[in-house]
Formats: sequence, structure tokens, C-alpha cells
Amino acid sequence: MLSRKTQTPRNEIEKLSERLRELSYLGSAISVLQWDQEVNMPKKGADARAKSISLLAGLVHTQFLNIDRDGLLSGLKKKLEDDRLAPREVTIVRETWRSFERARKLPETFVKAMAELTSKAQNVWQEAREENNFAKFAPYLERMVEKKREEAKLVGYEHSPYDALLDDYEPGATSGELERIFTDLKNFLIPFIAKIKKVSKSIRPYALAESVTFPIEKQVVFNTELAEAMGYDLDAGRIDVSTHPFTTGFHPHDVRFTVRYNVHDPFESIFPTLHEGGHALYDQGLPHEEFGTPLSDAVSLGIHESQSRLWENMVGKSLPFWKRWYPKLKKAFPGAFSASLGEFYKIINTVKPTLIRVDADEVTYNLHIIIRFELEKALIEGTIEVRDLPKLWNERYKEYLGIVPKTDREGVLQDVHWGAGYIGYFPTYALGNLYSAQFWNTAKKHIPKLEEKIAKGDLTILRNWLRTHIHTHGKSFSARDLTLRVTGETLNPDYFSAYLKDKYGPLYGIDTRG
Amino acid sequence: MLSRKTQTPRNEIEKLSERLRELSYLGSAISVLQWDQEVNMPKKGADARAKSISLLAGLVHTQFLNIDRDGLLSGLKKKLEDDRLAPREVTIVRETWRSFERARKLPETFVKAMAELTSKAQNVWQEAREENNFAKFAPYLERMVEKKREEAKLVGYEHSPYDALLDDYEPGATSGELERIFTDLKNFLIPFIAKIKKVSKSIRPYALAESVTFPIEKQVVFNTELAEAMGYDLDAGRIDVSTHPFTTGFHPHDVRFTVRYNVHDPFESIFPTLHEGGHALYDQGLPHEEFGTPLSDAVSLGIHESQSRLWENMVGKSLPFWKRWYPKLKKAFPGAFSASLGEFYKIINTVKPTLIRVDADEVTYNLHIIIRFELEKALIEGTIEVRDLPKLWNERYKEYLGIVPKTDREGVLQDVHWGAGYIGYFPTYALGNLYSAQFWNTAKKHIPKLEEKIAKGDLTILRNWLRTHIHTHGKSFSARDLTLRVTGETLNPDYFSAYLKDKYGPLYGIDTRG
Repeated sequence: MLSRKTQTPRNEIEKLSERLRELSYLGSAISVLQWDQEVNMPKKGADARAKSISLLAGLVHTQFLNIDRDGLLSGLKKKLEDDRLAPREVTIVRETWRSFERARKLPETFVKAMAELTSKAQNVWQEAREENNFAKFAPYLERMVEKKREEAKLVGYEHSPYDALLDDYEPGATSGELERIFTDLKNFLIPFIAKIKKVSKSIRPYALAESVTFPIEKQVVFNTELAEAMGYDLDAGRIDVSTHPFTTGFHPHDVRFTVRYNVHDPFESIFPTLHEGGHALYDQGLPHEEFGTPLSDAVSLGIHESQSRLWENMVGKSLPFWKRWYPKLKKAFPGAFSASLGEFYKIINTVKPTLIRVDADEVTYNLHIIIRFELEKALIEGTIEVRDLPKLWNERYKEYLGIVPKTDREGVLQDVHWGAGYIGYFPTYALGNLYSAQFWNTAKKHIPKLEEKIAKGDLTILRNWLRTHIHTHGKSFSARDLTLRVTGETLNPDYFSAYLKDKYGPLYGIDTRG
Repeated sequence: MLSRKTQTPRNEIEKLSERLRELSYLGSAISVLQWDQEVNMPKKGADARAKSISLLAGLVHTQFLNIDRDGLLSGLKKKLEDDRLAPREVTIVRETWRSFERARKLPETFVKAMAELTSKAQNVWQEAREENNFAKFAPYLERMVEKKREEAKLVGYEHSPYDALLDDYEPGATSGELERIFTDLKNFLIPFIAKIKKVSKSIRPYALAESVTFPIEKQVVFNTELAEAMGYDLDAGRIDVSTHPFTTGFHPHDVRFTVRYNVHDPFESIFPTLHEGGHALYDQGLPHEEFGTPLSDAVSLGIHESQSRLWENMVGKSLPFWKRWYPKLKKAFPGAFSASLGEFYKIINTVKPTLIRVDADEVTYNLHIIIRFELEKALIEGTIEVRDLPKLWNERYKEYLGIVPKTDREGVLQDVHWGAGYIGYFPTYALGNLYSAQFWNTAKKHIPKLEEKIAKGDLTILRNWLRTHIHTHGKSFSARDLTLRVTGETLNPDYFSAYLKDKYGPLYGIDTRG
């Protein structure tokens, strides 16, 4: 059997890989242009930059559609079906075919119209948010929903058109599965948060004295030390500043992330450093020798997010981590912190329903996602109308989080995703949280005394474990198979609820058995 | 006549312009990648970046060679020959044809071999320079000279193969013309420098106290203020740090330059700010509405250099300029400057033959160029051998500048140009100096009390004059015609010698009539 499976002439796979690599080097160029746009570009450069990016994106799209010009890919696809490929080859062919199929189902006219609508809708969203004027955004969101339904139809789906969209971000996931998971999660979270709320008056809210300032240079030094301690390789990356923190990898040897600084609050850059650093470790850990092929691509957005959330929350909001880093923080900002380590730990783990998703703590966060998922799925399935969104949004916030936005600006208009055409994206944030808890649970089993080691400053032991078990495999396994392989079972949300119970039970002194 | 000349269907020119614009937007992407490489890229990113750049460069080259696929360009070329184009159209067609002709004369195999040799030779040069080992570099330089002769043959030339190379950087210039100009210049400079040397013991050499430091942040503030005062638009550009200062324009709305900082010497960033700022003003002044066409391209490297040298020397090393800026400098660095304005002016205009071109003052600088021109021309014409270069180099330095390098590292190995394949490039530096003096002379005639205005801080009046008379025309005129148009005569090196005499005569108290 083995010999039959490795018979594929090396040069066919090599030929395909070479074509993919070329596309990826061009894709990297686009990413550099986008990174520069967010980090460096002077404002007047925007129009010219948009032209360069859209031209390059068009080139890449055309070249990708042309990848099977001589039947190379279809030939390999046939071999895949006939079970005549070696494992490494299977991944390359299966995943390339997957993207190719999806790409060629979308006609040029559709892609162009979508690009235009996205650009326009995003601008209108920005204005609408500033003016707190949902009515202004509504017609564009309606068009977006229509277009996204069209996309789903073109791509094809079994049960819900939403699945076709979700699949672009989280291959293999279905809305049916998400509904089951999210219902369980909701049923756990809502009463759990209510319990915390009941006792939370005793918890000092997370707030720093306004009079204390945290010089940006010192924050930079602290964050750089932290990123390096995580095992982030600064010879293969850099940390910059942008309005919205993000991570981008041009190649495993050049993976950059950004944060932003607030002189009054160092945690606005420290937690994003842990979060983006987690993303960046994934991208630096992808096998560089396979660059360009699916073997050097992340599994899914959910798995990617699990890496950022694991570092941000399981590590970065844990007591062992701060045993090491709180003294360093106090040293970096003399006089700024008077709380004991225990108090400090409580402060950074304050649970409090908030209107804004990006400000949410790890307990309430998933409810923000579930609301968005329920609404966007209903929009795509046509069971609700865009015009009713603000009302539905506010009702859902009242029901799940017990708070109601006073304005659409801090309600339905807060996120860029829908205007940018990212429908089906939100659930990957929640999946990331669930995966992170499950991976964390396994990591603690695999690495003896992990938390003690973290308390002593050894973070690379965790990076190495993640690298070996997750990063290095690229897209070799689906999210489902990877999770099974790493943790011994497929996605199980109980790990997340158990993690919350174990952590917040003692922290808030609440009974978590119910 | 006019009606006949404007008959060209707008859409033919528009069609060509659109193709050129697309190429330029892709070219801009390459420039962004290169800029990032020098300014930001982490070191491990180098290999991947080289791949992205070479792929994109290949794409641009192929697309450019394909620009006449339907005879659009040849058709317009025919109209150009028949004198049936309007002036704006003439420039676009003439210059595009010029580049097209040159590009298609170089076969793909040649271009690739040259790219490989360049990359290799540059690396070897770097090692050879570090090791002070000319013998290591020599075989690569020999191959480079061979390749460059081949290029000249492919491109074609009338008198000297050197002309074919020179033409790539300074369209229209010939080595015969340069020889005449440089001989005159040499005959003026060598005795002039000798006179200065005789009295120069009385001049305090340019040196800052080692104990004084100039914090980089303060240098940044000073340089930024200076660049803005020159009229450099920071909303359409930015100033960064790189090992070798350079300017790059992605579009007139995004033109960036770099400098480097030395905490012991602010002039290592101030004069480069004036120099690169001058280049940047040119690129920002190109007509953005013509982006992509030759109407939005610089005339030549010589004219480009004239802009940087005019700001660096005629303005930046003048007494009126420092009347305004010396007090600001003293304020920015309290206690660092004790010299009077007059002494300071002498210090920054110290004339002293040096071995290193980039450290040369404006009087001795051209001799460095003349030496390189004479040697590279002889190499290409085959009248000298690569192996004799170090000897010839040292003899020439002795003869022209009265000093001899002790090592090849501070001699023939000091510049990257030859290893990088830039043979025929050096003369444009000297041409820039000559043009700058001639333009400066005209500017002073056109702008009443220009130097008084500069002393009062008005630098934008000069930028505006340069913009109107030079920048805004793109490649509408050749270097020769532009100079004639702006100054009333073609290049006349006497303006440069007159400028030196007028400035250094009084400064050194020497008789300049001889």
C-alpha cells in the first residue's frame, strides 16, 4: 500500500506547489501593502494604495483560476479520489481543490460587484456609526445580505445558506452544529453570569488611577520582553502600532503584529500583545519549507483564534503568569500598582456585562458572539429583516446580558464585520474560545507542572507544545481531526465551562456545581 | 495645424495611459516592498521578500513588453513620426516608445542572467569590502563589465558602448559631452582646491565636541520641522531611518525618505534631510493626475540630483539659511554650539580632500565622480582591465585629490554601484551638481530677494519655483530642453565654478580670478 501511495511523480506535486508558492509570494506582497497601509501610510496615499492592492488581488485571483490550465490540478484530484496520494500530497491536493472549487464558482462579475459593495458599505458603515444612524447603513447591509445569499447559492450548501458562508472561515463547521453548541453555552453562561453578578459588588472594578501615566516607551519595552518570553522571534517579525491591533504573516519568517497604546492603561496593550502574540506564534510556527502550500496554512479562523485566546486568557489572565510578571510590571511602572497580587488577579478578571464586544471579559464574551451569530444566520436565512436589526439586537442584549444599548452606535453598529462582508465570521471567535480551553486542558496534562513553569517564567515550553501539536501541521488535518488528534476528542464545549467554573468559582466565591 | 495635432482619438492615448498606469501601480507595490525591506523588514524575512520582489518585477517586465500586443503603441509611434500628436501626447508616446525599445532589445535570458549576477556580485562586493579583498570581487566585476558591454551591444550605440549605459540613467547624455565638461571642471577644480589647501590651516576643521550628545528624538523634531519648512508634505510622505538614506515615491501622494542618526553629530541627519527632502519635493511635485505616464516621471537622474543638491548645498550650506536655522539649532541642543554664526558657516563649509565620496564637501565631490567616470568608461571601452583598477584608482586619487587610500576598502571598494550593475550612473551625481548651480542662479534672478527670504524662513517660495519650472513637467522636456527653457541656455558648467568662486573666495580669503 505505502509504495502505491508514494508513486505520484514528485514533479506533479512539485509543479503544483511551485504554482501555489508563486501565488503566495504575490499574496505576501498584498499583505505587505495592507500592513503598511494600517501602520505607516500617509493619509493622502490611500487612493493609490487601493489601486495597487486591487490590481494585485485581481492578478492573484486570475492566476489562481488559471492553476488548472493544463489539467495538473484535476489530474491530481483524480489521484486523490483513487486514493493514490501520500499523506503530504493529500493535504496539498485536497485543500487546493477546495479553494479552487469555491473560487471558480464565483464569476468575475460577482467578485467585482462584491469588492465594490464591500468598499462602499464599509465606508457608509463608518459614517453611519459616527452619526449613530442605522437607517443610513441599512440599505447597504440589505444589499450585502442579498449578495451573500447569492454567494451561498453559487457556492452551494446542503441545509442552510449560512453554512456556505461559514465554511469560508471555518471549513467543515455547520450552523446546525454551532446552534447545538451555542445553545448549551448560553444555558450555562446566562445563569453563571447571574451568580457572579449577585456577588460582584464585593469585587473592585478594574480601574487604574487617572493620575498615573504609563509612558509608551516603557510599555513597549514591557510588551517586547513579554512577546520574546512567549517565544515570538523578533528576527522574524516586528511589533508596531495601528488603530486596531492585528497580526499578519507574509511568510513564517516575517510575521508582524500591532497593538495600540494608552498612556493611562497599559493593559490596553499588554493583553493585545498576548492575543496578537498568540496569533503570531501560530504563523511563525507554520512550516516555512512548505510555504505557499496548504501545509503552511492555518487550519481555520477558529483554530487561529484558539491560539490568541489561549495566550490572552488561559495564560495571560492566570495567577501563575502574573506571579512572574506582576513584579516586573511594578518595577516597570514604579508607584503605579499598590494592589497585592491576589487583588490584582481579581481586578484583571472582573466580570461585568458590557455593551461593546471588544471590551468584554472572557466570561461574557461568547454571548456577544452568540447574539451576532443568531442574527446574521436569521438574516441570511431570510427569517428576519435588516430594518428590524436594532430592535432585535437590543432585545437580545437585554435577554442574554441584562443590558441595553442606549444608541445603535454602541449596539448594532459597533462592528465592521457586516459592512465588510464578513458574514459567518463571528462564530469563529467563540469557537476559538472553546478550542482554547480544550487545548489548554490537554497542554496541562501533557506538560508536567505547566503552571508552575509559567510562574517561573518559562512560556516557551507552552509555545513548543503548541508548535509541535498544532502550528507545524498547517492544514494537514481539519479542525475536527486536529482537535481529536491533540485532545483525544472532537470539540467539547464542556472544557470551556469547566475552565470558567474552576477559575471564577473560587475567585468570586460562588457555588459552581449547578 | 493645432486642430490636426489634437485629432488623435483621446481613447488611444487614454488606453495606453491606462496600461502604463496599471504597470505603475504594480511598480509602486515593488517600491513599497523595497522600502519596507530597507526600513522595517526583520532580517529573516529577506529570502521571502526577494522572491516577492523578483516575481513582481518579472510580471511588470512581461506586461510592459506586452504593451504593444495589439499594435496600440506602434500605431501611436507612427502618428508621432507623422507629427500628428498634441504636445502632451508626444511626451507619452515618445518616452514610452523609448523605454519599450530598450526593454525589448534585452532578451529574457539576458535580463535574468543580469539579475542573478547583480544579486551575487553585490553580495560578494559586500564581503570583499569587509575583508578589504579586491581580488575576491574582481572576477564578478569582470563578469559585470562583460555583461554591461553585452547590454550596450544589444541596446546599440553610435560612438562608445558607454553611451548606451549612460543613456539609461541620463537620457540624451553622451560620454563625449561628459568628457569635455569634466575636463573643464577638473582644470578648474584641481588648482582651486590647491589654493584653498594653502590657506586652510587657518580654518577650524568641522568637528563637534565628543562629549556633547544630540538626542535622536530632538534631531527628529528638528529635521521634521526643516522638511516641513521646505514644503515637504507629511500627509503625502514620511521620514524614517535606514542604513543608507534614500527617497522613494510610490505615487506623488506617497513619497518617503530616510535618514540615519548619529547621537554625536546632528549634521549626519540634517544635510541628508535637505538632500533627500530635495529629491522628495521633486517626486511630490510630479503631476499626480498624470501618474503612470512619462508626464509624471522625473526627467533624468541628473535633474533629480540637481534638486537634492540645490537644497543640500546652495540652500543648506548657505549663510542666509543658517541665519534662520542656527538659532533654532542652538535652541534645540542647548549648550552644544558655542561658535558664532560666521564661524559655524565656515565649519560646515570646510573644504578638505577625503577618500570617501559620500563624506566629500561640495568642492571636492565632483573629482570623486570624475575618477569613477574615467575608470568605468575605460573598463567598458576595454582600454583598462579590472585587475588594474586598484592601482589606477589610487594613482588618480593622488593626482586629482592629493591623497591615496591606504586600503581598497577606502578606495576602489567603497561604492556599491559597480557590483550592483550601475555602470554609467556616477556621472549623474556630477551633472546634478552642475545643474543645481545653474538652476540656483536662475532662481535667484526670478525670485526677488530670494536669499533674504530664505534668511527669514521662507523656503516654500523656492519649492514653488522649482515645482512650477521643473517638477510639474515630468518628462515633457529632455534634460537639455528643460535646462534651456528654465535657464535660457543648455548645461553650462561655468555656473558651478562661479558659484564655488563666489562662495569660497570670500570664505577662505583667496583670489578667485585665476
